[in-house]
Amino acid sequence: MVETIQWTDGGVVMIDQTKLPRVEAFVTCNTYLEMADAIQTMVIRGAPAIGVAAAMGVALGVLKASPSTLDAEFETICATLAATRPTAVNLFWAIDRMKKLYATLRGQSIETIREAMVTEAQLIYREDIAINMAMGAHGAPLVPDGKTVLTHCNAGALATAGFGTALGVIRAAVNSGKKIDVFADETRPFLQGARLTVWELQQDNIPVTLITDNMAGHFLKSGRIGCVVVGADRIAGNGDVANKVGTYGVAVLAKENGVPFYVAAPISTLDLTLTSGDQIPIEERPSTEVTEVFGVPVAPEHTAVQNPAFDVTPNRYVAGIITEKGVAYAPYEISLPALAAKE
Amino acid sequence: MVETIQWTDGGVVMIDQTKLPRVEAFVTCNTYLEMADAIQTMVIRGAPAIGVAAAMGVALGVLKASPSTLDAEFETICATLAATRPTAVNLFWAIDRMKKLYATLRGQSIETIREAMVTEAQLIYREDIAINMAMGAHGAPLVPDGKTVLTHCNAGALATAGFGTALGVIRAAVNSGKKIDVFADETRPFLQGARLTVWELQQDNIPVTLITDNMAGHFLKSGRIGCVVVGADRIAGNGDVANKVGTYGVAVLAKENGVPFYVAAPISTLDLTLTSGDQIPIEERPSTEVTEVFGVPVAPEHTAVQNPAFDVTPNRYVAGIITEKGVAYAPYEISLPALAAKE
Repeated sequence: MVETIQWTDGGVVMIDQTKLPRVEAFVTCNTYLEMADAIQTMVIRGAPAIGVAAAMGVALGVLKASPSTLDAEFETICATLAATRPTAVNLFWAIDRMKKLYATLRGQSIETIREAMVTEAQLIYREDIAINMAMGAHGAPLVPDGKTVLTHCNAGALATAGFGTALGVIRAAVNSGKKIDVFADETRPFLQGARLTVWELQQDNIPVTLITDNMAGHFLKSGRIGCVVVGADRIAGNGDVANKVGTYGVAVLAKENGVPFYVAAPISTLDLTLTSGDQIPIEERPSTEVTEVFGVPVAPEHTAVQNPAFDVTPNRYVAGIITEKGVAYAPYEISLPALAAKE
Repeated sequence: MVETIQWTDGGVVMIDQTKLPRVEAFVTCNTYLEMADAIQTMVIRGAPAIGVAAAMGVALGVLKASPSTLDAEFETICATLAATRPTAVNLFWAIDRMKKLYATLRGQSIETIREAMVTEAQLIYREDIAINMAMGAHGAPLVPDGKTVLTHCNAGALATAGFGTALGVIRAAVNSGKKIDVFADETRPFLQGARLTVWELQQDNIPVTLITDNMAGHFLKSGRIGCVVVGADRIAGNGDVANKVGTYGVAVLAKENGVPFYVAAPISTLDLTLTSGDQIPIEERPSTEVTEVFGVPVAPEHTAVQNPAFDVTPNRYVAGIITEKGVAYAPYEISLPALAAKE
């Protein structure tokens, strides 16, 4: 399987997700500023993956910082990485975890601090893979056998440290012997479905068919889709789900056609401080993502554009939220805190 | 306003809709085979426009046919043009109209037949513009003032002989003094929204904002959209509407959010021989439309694709069908035949 991100002695190595699928290029970050840029420009994307990337970015920053000004630099490192993207909560969760560890290390030698930060970032990486495997085990039984699974965007190995959230559930269902295939929404404007999900599933020999986003309704109505599984960038305490723009439309069309709509996300994607999805900040991205495809213009010059990168799916459309600790069902304001508190 | 298609002494001249908006090139057809190719490859597209194009194609064929074998050639001409695209009923309607006129001309001189066929094709062209103006007059009062109109695909001047169906309603609303702006779905895979609707509305100085198809739900939920207006390729006798793929999704999302969803189409788009939209044939188009954008690959090689060009919106999502004879409301199996029969 593809390695999304790796800590190496030569820096943090990531496959460049802006260039896939036709070019398999790698980017190496040696400083926290390079990592912030990689997250912002979506060299690496996907909520769990940018959590791992941010933790590694903090570790890179601490490695390069001057011991004499480390406390001040640490604040800058964390603030810079936190300012890269606003919606996925895993970014803030990972930075907070690094901050909490840092606070316990006050007074230790610089060598000890550096080693602890690097170890913690690598631990977050390894934990993420284990979390995705557990999510797959909980989610696989929900996938109807002999049908098609529809997914939106890329919630795969490329969106995580490995195995994937939504695609992890699909992989686990396939591994359990279910005969399923996948329909992948191309996911404009960044084309994560066409470029990343199709590529990733092809590498695993899982049958996948590419459709444009606006065809999802047609196929949900056709009866061939057994369930929808998507990832999430942030889930409010009431079960409202922020995920890649277009997820809301798929969820409404799934419910309208009696197809269960599942969200697969780690507990670190929960934001129990929010009582509603309306409180989740939605990132607006550059208009050129819409007006150009790989640099080729597809609209007239000076076209006005809206480009929200995410939307919010109200909890009433969500049949279940698959986490590493089990599956949460409505009412989510009760089930989600209970799962989060579970040992 | 742009001239979509014109009968000239040098042939039928059309703006090449595969090259817009960055290149304004024109294609001239001198034979019915060239016209069939232009329709098939979408140099010209949009249900009313391909009706006009087919009629002009029949006229071109009759002009070039040998008088001694005209009857046989006429059958081939009509069959060839009818085989170009399966979904839009206006194509068959226009060819049938030319056939009926031809049948009344048996025994006339070749000059008389040729002149009559050319005159009829030009009449269909002029009638279409008048029909669109009438549709605009009926539809404009339905458009809420001070809000945004969402449209999908291009049902504009470029989809008709001129003025447009859905965009005709928008133009008429603007001309009546309403302060509205337009959100245009980009409409993958052929990008009629990004390439044609945005271009056309910019030329008329009607404010337009481009969004990707999967953002429609987000903005319908936001409250800024006052109504949706789209065109149609074929409307069954019960009011089920075949239109560009993605229309069904927009209709469901509009209804879910209490936003009225209107269809603007001439009476020639009605197919009262069908009792349900399930009977409408849906064209499957080449997979390269999905895997490439202007020749640039956006998916891995050998990607499996589904590419239905249209979908069917069940009548329960349709708030009204705007025609040149007035607006039909549910129950459509009563209102549509009544409108069609109206003098």
